[in-house]
Amino acid sequence: MCKIGLIRVLSTDDEEALHRHGRLLERFIGPADFQVISRCIQGHPQGLWNPREIRKGVPKVVRLGQEMERRDAVAAVLVSCVADPGVPQLREVASVPVIGAGSASAAVALSLGQPVGALGITDWVLPPVSEVLGSRLVGWEIPEGVKTTLDLMSEQGRERFVKAGERLKEQGAGVILLACTGFSTVEAAPLLEERLGLPVVDPLLSAGLIAYYAARGNG
Amino acid sequence: MCKIGLIRVLSTDDEEALHRHGRLLERFIGPADFQVISRCIQGHPQGLWNPREIRKGVPKVVRLGQEMERRDAVAAVLVSCVADPGVPQLREVASVPVIGAGSASAAVALSLGQPVGALGITDWVLPPVSEVLGSRLVGWEIPEGVKTTLDLMSEQGRERFVKAGERLKEQGAGVILLACTGFSTVEAAPLLEERLGLPVVDPLLSAGLIAYYAARGNG
Repeated sequence: MCKIGLIRVLSTDDEEALHRHGRLLERFIGPADFQVISRCIQGHPQGLWNPREIRKGVPKVVRLGQEMERRDAVAAVLVSCVADPGVPQLREVASVPVIGAGSASAAVALSLGQPVGALGITDWVLPPVSEVLGSRLVGWEIPEGVKTTLDLMSEQGRERFVKAGERLKEQGAGVILLACTGFSTVEAAPLLEERLGLPVVDPLLSAGLIAYYAARGNG
Repeated sequence: MCKIGLIRVLSTDDEEALHRHGRLLERFIGPADFQVISRCIQGHPQGLWNPREIRKGVPKVVRLGQEMERRDAVAAVLVSCVADPGVPQLREVASVPVIGAGSASAAVALSLGQPVGALGITDWVLPPVSEVLGSRLVGWEIPEGVKTTLDLMSEQGRERFVKAGERLKEQGAGVILLACTGFSTVEAAPLLEERLGLPVVDPLLSAGLIAYYAARGNG
């Protein structure tokens, strides 16, 4: 059994919403002996969509990560948010590997060796993305009218993120990094790949692959 | 069917040796519909173990990569050498993603968020590793008496790379990156994890995960 803990930063009482990232990741990774335990921090029903929310989220992520290590006996923790809230701090106190969706998916995008365009929902570039990509990051775009991860879920949201992806392609992007795990929730990557004709890095699935590797080891 | 092309830079006529990395990767990734096609460049029976050999290998990797894209219809190419020989050049001419074991495994090591110690066989730091890791790279060690990838295969080689790993741990490494795919051939990672009590990033398996992702996409 290979078990990872997944921390959602979108607070919800809805069991299906809570487990959506975990289910997507289990389906993607495959083996029946791979299991994702999902828990969410409290008090952020719109997710961590601005610096104030992110700051408030940090200690909650750290507490929850420690709790999951103890209670759920997970072999790695994945923080399912591209801002990597609490990731450095949790690493200080956890004894299992801690993977941040931001730094890990940016690392996967970097490995593809093409100029990276990032599609986010914040009007500033998230530090884990710029730190990993440096000059390989050629653009950062946000879909028009999108403020929180919830706005990605409408039909209108969908057309708008395709348009933002097209702007990144015009800026020379050879690969698109989705810089919010809300895009994973709505499975934006396949649609964008089809519409843009470029590889698209999904932050949940790509970071999840690395968390899986960290948990499973080389066996 | 998800098919990737794997380029060996150790020239060999021995079918088992040629396919060893591919078989290890297929076993690691799992699904029956994942296939690795392996081919090697010619004229390097000891691998690319010094700058002159690496320089001579570059055009051969590019030619072979193009040939595999055309002939084998692979969805991604993995260059199974931590020096990433020919990787930037092949990317210029290939239309499928090209993954270098060096830059990709360094990216995976970076994602684990701990100071990285690299275990190589060259007495200089390989550029793909230093470029991705920057100041996160806290040490580079080589096993005593090892010059080429072939030297790793003996019992004596084994004890010596464990010793080199211990030196990296003393230097503050929280994760070990194996900076030669010769370590993958001899399955050094599990032994080192056990002896050092640290996570070890295998360059073939970790870069192979990313090549698998690049070939398969998010479906």
